[in-house]
Amino acid sequence: MAGKHGNILIINGPNLNMLGTREPEKYGSRTLEEIIAGVKKISADKGYPVIHFQSNAEGEIVGFIQREGIDASGMIINAGAYTHTSIAIRDSILAVGIPFVEVHLTNIYRREEFRHHSYLSDIAIGVIAGFGADSYEWGLRALINILEKE
Amino acid sequence: MAGKHGNILIINGPNLNMLGTREPEKYGSRTLEEIIAGVKKISADKGYPVIHFQSNAEGEIVGFIQREGIDASGMIINAGAYTHTSIAIRDSILAVGIPFVEVHLTNIYRREEFRHHSYLSDIAIGVIAGFGADSYEWGLRALINILEKE
Amino acid sequence: MAGKHGNILIINGPNLNMLGTREPEKYGSRTLEEIIAGVKKISADKGYPVIHFQSNAEGEIVGFIQREGIDASGMIINAGAYTHTSIAIRDSILAVGIPFVEVHLTNIYRREEFRHHSYLSDIAIGVIAGFGADSYEWGLRALINILEKE
Amino acid sequence: MAGKHGNILIINGPNLNMLGTREPEKYGSRTLEEIIAGVKKISADKGYPVIHFQSNAEGEIVGFIQREGIDASGMIINAGAYTHTSIAIRDSILAVGIPFVEVHLTNIYRREEFRHHSYLSDIAIGVIAGFGADSYEWGLRALINILEKE
Amino acid sequence: MAGKHGNILIINGPNLNMLGTREPEKYGSRTLEEIIAGVKKISADKGYPVIHFQSNAEGEIVGFIQREGIDASGMIINAGAYTHTSIAIRDSILAVGIPFVEVHLTNIYRREEFRHHSYLSDIAIGVIAGFGADSYEWGLRALINILEKE
Amino acid sequence: MAGKHGNILIINGPNLNMLGTREPEKYGSRTLEEIIAGVKKISADKGYPVIHFQSNAEGEIVGFIQREGIDASGMIINAGAYTHTSIAIRDSILAVGIPFVEVHLTNIYRREEFRHHSYLSDIAIGVIAGFGADSYEWGLRALINILEKE
Amino acid sequence: MAGKHGNILIINGPNLNMLGTREPEKYGSRTLEEIIAGVKKISADKGYPVIHFQSNAEGEIVGFIQREGIDASGMIINAGAYTHTSIAIRDSILAVGIPFVEVHLTNIYRREEFRHHSYLSDIAIGVIAGFGADSYEWGLRALINILEKE
Amino acid sequence: MAGKHGNILIINGPNLNMLGTREPEKYGSRTLEEIIAGVKKISADKGYPVIHFQSNAEGEIVGFIQREGIDASGMIINAGAYTHTSIAIRDSILAVGIPFVEVHLTNIYRREEFRHHSYLSDIAIGVIAGFGADSYEWGLRALINILEKE
Amino acid sequence: MAGKHGNILIINGPNLNMLGTREPEKYGSRTLEEIIAGVKKISADKGYPVIHFQSNAEGEIVGFIQREGIDASGMIINAGAYTHTSIAIRDSILAVGIPFVEVHLTNIYRREEFRHHSYLSDIAIGVIAGFGADSYEWGLRALINILEKE
Amino acid sequence: MAGKHGNILIINGPNLNMLGTREPEKYGSRTLEEIIAGVKKISADKGYPVIHFQSNAEGEIVGFIQREGIDASGMIINAGAYTHTSIAIRDSILAVGIPFVEVHLTNIYRREEFRHHSYLSDIAIGVIAGFGADSYEWGLRALINILEKE
Amino acid sequence: MAGKHGNILIINGPNLNMLGTREPEKYGSRTLEEIIAGVKKISADKGYPVIHFQSNAEGEIVGFIQREGIDASGMIINAGAYTHTSIAIRDSILAVGIPFVEVHLTNIYRREEFRHHSYLSDIAIGVIAGFGADSYEWGLRALINILEKE
Amino acid sequence: MAGKHGNILIINGPNLNMLGTREPEKYGSRTLEEIIAGVKKISADKGYPVIHFQSNAEGEIVGFIQREGIDASGMIINAGAYTHTSIAIRDSILAVGIPFVEVHLTNIYRREEFRHHSYLSDIAIGVIAGFGADSYEWGLRALINILEKE
Repeated sequence: MAGKHGNILIINGPNLNMLGTREPEKYGSRTLEEIIAGVKKISADKGYPVIHFQSNAEGEIVGFIQREGIDASGMIINAGAYTHTSIAIRDSILAVGIPFVEVHLTNIYRREEFRHHSYLSDIAIGVIAGFGADSYEWGLRALINILEKE
Repeated sequence: MAGKHGNILIINGPNLNMLGTREPEKYGSRTLEEIIAGVKKISADKGYPVIHFQSNAEGEIVGFIQREGIDASGMIINAGAYTHTSIAIRDSILAVGIPFVEVHLTNIYRREEFRHHSYLSDIAIGVIAGFGADSYEWGLRALINILEKE
Repeated sequence: MAGKHGNILIINGPNLNMLGTREPEKYGSRTLEEIIAGVKKISADKGYPVIHFQSNAEGEIVGFIQREGIDASGMIINAGAYTHTSIAIRDSILAVGIPFVEVHLTNIYRREEFRHHSYLSDIAIGVIAGFGADSYEWGLRALINILEKE
Repeated sequence: MAGKHGNILIINGPNLNMLGTREPEKYGSRTLEEIIAGVKKISADKGYPVIHFQSNAEGEIVGFIQREGIDASGMIINAGAYTHTSIAIRDSILAVGIPFVEVHLTNIYRREEFRHHSYLSDIAIGVIAGFGADSYEWGLRALINILEKE
Repeated sequence: MAGKHGNILIINGPNLNMLGTREPEKYGSRTLEEIIAGVKKISADKGYPVIHFQSNAEGEIVGFIQREGIDASGMIINAGAYTHTSIAIRDSILAVGIPFVEVHLTNIYRREEFRHHSYLSDIAIGVIAGFGADSYEWGLRALINILEKE
Repeated sequence: MAGKHGNILIINGPNLNMLGTREPEKYGSRTLEEIIAGVKKISADKGYPVIHFQSNAEGEIVGFIQREGIDASGMIINAGAYTHTSIAIRDSILAVGIPFVEVHLTNIYRREEFRHHSYLSDIAIGVIAGFGADSYEWGLRALINILEKE
Repeated sequence: MAGKHGNILIINGPNLNMLGTREPEKYGSRTLEEIIAGVKKISADKGYPVIHFQSNAEGEIVGFIQREGIDASGMIINAGAYTHTSIAIRDSILAVGIPFVEVHLTNIYRREEFRHHSYLSDIAIGVIAGFGADSYEWGLRALINILEKE
Repeated sequence: MAGKHGNILIINGPNLNMLGTREPEKYGSRTLEEIIAGVKKISADKGYPVIHFQSNAEGEIVGFIQREGIDASGMIINAGAYTHTSIAIRDSILAVGIPFVEVHLTNIYRREEFRHHSYLSDIAIGVIAGFGADSYEWGLRALINILEKE
Repeated sequence: MAGKHGNILIINGPNLNMLGTREPEKYGSRTLEEIIAGVKKISADKGYPVIHFQSNAEGEIVGFIQREGIDASGMIINAGAYTHTSIAIRDSILAVGIPFVEVHLTNIYRREEFRHHSYLSDIAIGVIAGFGADSYEWGLRALINILEKE
Repeated sequence: MAGKHGNILIINGPNLNMLGTREPEKYGSRTLEEIIAGVKKISADKGYPVIHFQSNAEGEIVGFIQREGIDASGMIINAGAYTHTSIAIRDSILAVGIPFVEVHLTNIYRREEFRHHSYLSDIAIGVIAGFGADSYEWGLRALINILEKE
Repeated sequence: MAGKHGNILIINGPNLNMLGTREPEKYGSRTLEEIIAGVKKISADKGYPVIHFQSNAEGEIVGFIQREGIDASGMIINAGAYTHTSIAIRDSILAVGIPFVEVHLTNIYRREEFRHHSYLSDIAIGVIAGFGADSYEWGLRALINILEKE
Repeated sequence: MAGKHGNILIINGPNLNMLGTREPEKYGSRTLEEIIAGVKKISADKGYPVIHFQSNAEGEIVGFIQREGIDASGMIINAGAYTHTSIAIRDSILAVGIPFVEVHLTNIYRREEFRHHSYLSDIAIGVIAGFGADSYEWGLRALINILEKE
């Protein structure tokens, strides 16, 4: 029954608000809204309300995680460029101690060298990269599966 | 309708035959047979026959990919330790040109430094790591989704 | 005839708002306003309206580029310290696909080692560094020359 | 006599607003408010008014230093995660030319490798790390001692 | 009394079957058979049956360790060239959790740079290198001493 | 007169059995059988019998060199991916002390960084890379020339 | 009034004599003569005579700088490939102490890694790269601006 | 009440006996004796007897720590040059298990690269660097504060 | 029929004029003239005129390639020491776009570390190293084979 | 027959005098005296007198080796921390040309990175690490075996 | 008796012809002619004729060493900037096998990092750096001393 | 006139007391006493008394420099192995501010990699290496020449 669980946070970092409208050949033609709508439906079916948050600002993402992360059940995060540069986001996740899955639209391992390292991977449950908008769906399903087992 | 598609290969590298019987607290209590049985069922429902292959020998994995990879639709591979050391397996995949998903039971990014680099990631569709036996399921579903779109 | 072209964006990153008032022996005595005024005049003569934006916040620069970059003709950017640390700004430029010139007041190659690498240079038309406030003028003229040739 | 001196700025970077409420075994049980209250009292006794500023946003910290740093006597800064990633904060301090002490609650040299380098240390008067909330007190006293000598 | 203990495995990696017949000035004139015969006698006197295994194939060594390692008391391993390249052998040892001593005929630290790193040393009880065929004897005695203490 | 000399071994490593049938635009359209047939004829004319061996398994290549290398006159080896990862093959060649030429179909220096280092080059007579199937012919002729001079 | 100033040297390193005749899609269709003619005109208008020198020989460029650099007012240099390898040219510039601008036709930061470092940048007034033949014009104008201010 | 606690050791490494007499502009004009006298007074007030030891010899410092470290309450150490080269001092501290604070007169992070790494920092309670002779005072006060809390 | 083809250039870099007269045990006893005479004969038989050029001067080699490379059919180059340091020679080859084979008398991979990298290999058709004077013959034959196929 | 041989030196570096009294869970409960007594007995039985020397001072160890090393038959050395930092001890061993075995109580390869390199290993007969006090016994036996063979 | 010995070559690389006329505060006020005159006198007294050669061109230095090096007794070389970049000069010295001393006016170890490595030092008799024009005198005297001993 | 100058210190580091008696083929057959005697005579002729000091102990060398360095005119130092590992000796020299020449018997640049870096070179007047015992003589003469000029 939906609603009995804590929230699942979905966080999107910088430039992910451009999804679907720019470079569709690279990132797909679905907008972020469409992707999140699909994910929300799956989550609702499983009984987990979703709070979605997108920001281009590192500090705002940190703030969101601090506010909403404490009582949430889990998190899906695609930190975009901040994946590779932000220790602050890492620290905020550690501070609230929330279990999370790191997702990426593209396969970051076949892109520039500086995208191969993530400040989040070693504290995540797991990583899913390269499946376009589907990465969110698999990440969510994987997260809920883990939560259900606990 | 099952059967109309090419095979989906599932390859497991060295030591994965020990799953479920050794170090269950680390790798889970399900045996490789149980995991594959579950995955086969999902695949069958989608109409893709599965051929599973496990070997501790790099050369045998190369041989299997050469033989079966040419006509297969796709591949799920957990190359285990060979992920980090085998250029030969990489080359065999490139030779047959098969689309594949790289999966790992554990989150390799929180383990030893030498497990952070993969010779397969940059030629894979995507990577899924850290979800235990579920990594295979998400990998299979993600692969089939991609195949269906083409 | 002036005005028939798209905008030229001029972006200044963190601390460049301090120009002229602090450390004039290092950065010159002209304020940012004075520099931009001069540049705007040149641009206007060539028929390109200028939109200037300065911010100390990485996320705001990303947002500005997303909003204004889509319809603009070109961009002059001095990302200041973010030149060396921001993949997010790089990604926003790639997302809107705007041609741009990277400029610096000082010769960054004779400063600290960590200022020798730029996340923008390899996607810029070109780089102009070391001419104080004049770097903006040469950058603008160089940009317009390129635009005129297309 | 209090008040005759310029202000002493105390800056806390991202996630330090969580102090005392999260991970007390690691960072101690005193809240940031309590720590700052103690520090303010010491500073007041010495005749230096304190302005405290905490932010999760790199750009806001840069802005604060630009605004308040020009007329202040000195600064205590715990830039948190930005210690290791922000050249912009470094540049803002250099721009206003304020003497400062870098403090850390924890001993950063026994933590992850990426926390061993600081973009602030080489321009600070000195560094104090590892004494929990006391680091602020020692930093303040050390700073005032230096100021008194000048 | 001999026989009451579990087996002691002795594993020799690639090219060690050539011992005594090739390059005797470098590796000594005793054949692998002669060395093992000597070691078996010592082991038998202490009551530990020996199972010896030599292979040029990484996968076969992995398989042997999986099969025989589970019930064995301990292991002496000279993995030869695989010492420096095989994560798979490392993983198989970790999987069966067997205590072992790493031995080398030659002093690997005075040879090529690429022989200075071992994938086994940090999970071994200890390392003995440089004493020719005697390395096996000291390794065996050292191993049994440890086993007796437990 | 043919036959009076020792054998010349020709060794092909992993995936070279795919030659001619896969990726002909990259590796040429001649099969390995055709290439070897051509080479054998040249060698026969010079009086050197050829033994050809292809394997995807590192251990089998090691074994072949041990068995056949002792009495052979020389060797042509294209170790494929094992060129870059196998110390075991290097050691087996050193053990039998056979003079050899390293050949590659493609110019390995214009491929991925990890293909630039070879564990065989520094113990080879010489290296020939980049001439497709002809690399074998030039390698064989070069080897026989060296042998004839001794 | 032209002529009252010292000379401005324009130096072009190896292969720049090929401009316009080879690879025009990469380096543009204007020959070096045409480019220099344009630049000379601008310089003459400003009252600075130009001496142009192109050589493929490192030693000749060193000699030219020694002879002509002592009395010249400034220099524009595109050292071509020697930018990245010649300490001798650097030393000759330091010896005569001439102010100069480093220019490049292409954006060297988006080319091979070995073209990212310059032995001249840290002793130049500034760097202009990526604007094709225009780089010379901007470089010259920037240089004269600096000279006029002194 | 003084005397009821164990000793606090103060250790000064090589060349610190020169304090006050050489390079006062760099290290201050107070002699080591004066500094220690001040520190002893503070410590006495808190009830901790001080034993001071200065030596230019690594082995003597190791010996002092072994002898006096076992029963002492804590330690202030400025190991001077040995900070960056001595594993032996590190090991002696680990052997006696004494809590300690690492202090430096100068800010070692703005000096030569080889002074940025310390073999002591990661096993210290904390580090205080850059406050001249005051570093000892803050180090002592910080140490006693920690001891009082236990 | 000889003569209908463009020229084949043979270039020898610094010190190769010493061949045969100095260090014959290392480089063989044949002089450069003898080697080139042999090669010219082979080339003439195939209908390709040879132009040979040796120089100790980097700039002269660049000039030769510029002049003769445009109309030539192909090139054999042993750039000697410039192999490892000259970007200018690389650039001149790219400028004229001539297909070439890189040859070396000695096996450069068993010499000093700084001889392992070549600025020419990644733009060559292929590389032949280690066969003494024969390297030129195999290089020439390999080059002509390629040219014939086009 | 005891006594007819030269001495065997046993050298223990810094902090090894603490054995048995500190951190017994890590280094064992036997004191250095007990260990040496056991080793002396074995050596005496073989006819080699033992001279034992322990020092915390690098220079004293150098002096001991100079004095006693010239006429001794062999040496067992556990240089402790100096293993990783002392070139002086290495040089003194080379100066007297004494054959020696390097021993370590613990397995240094599973400790901190800076303990993985030894300045002694490449000039030792062999290395034995990880067997606690037994390392000395195996080292002594191995050394005598080698001496007997000569 | 003067004259009975072979020549001593003195070679000066790029920019050393500027000595005494430029940057005297750095390189001294004596011209190269004056320095060489002094050195020639010392050499004549010892009976060794001197041939001096200065060139800014790498290839000319290579040529000079080839021509004059074969019959000369020894060489003093200050290769200037080519010290750090020229493998060709190194090779020419190796080709003629002449004993030589490497000299530098300045202490190259306190200059830029890229001047710390020399391609000549490891094949020189010895190195003398930092004594201004005197470096030549000491180098010459040292060389002759060595020659006299042979 | 001898005696009017301050002392010249000559310092020899570890193992140099073995000179002449061990490894004469490497270090020459003259003892340290003989070398110093010769040097003292030269120095006396120039009017500089010599104080010679040899020690195997880093701390003693530091102490000697502190005591004798303050009033001395200059210093010749061959720090032996401490050249490469001792920051403490470097610091003691900086503390007393004495001009010095670094000398080495052997050419350290052709020995092990770890002997290529010196902690003294960048603060020395100059370096003389490779001339055996003569290095001291040239070093002394060079030092006195410099002192005379001041």
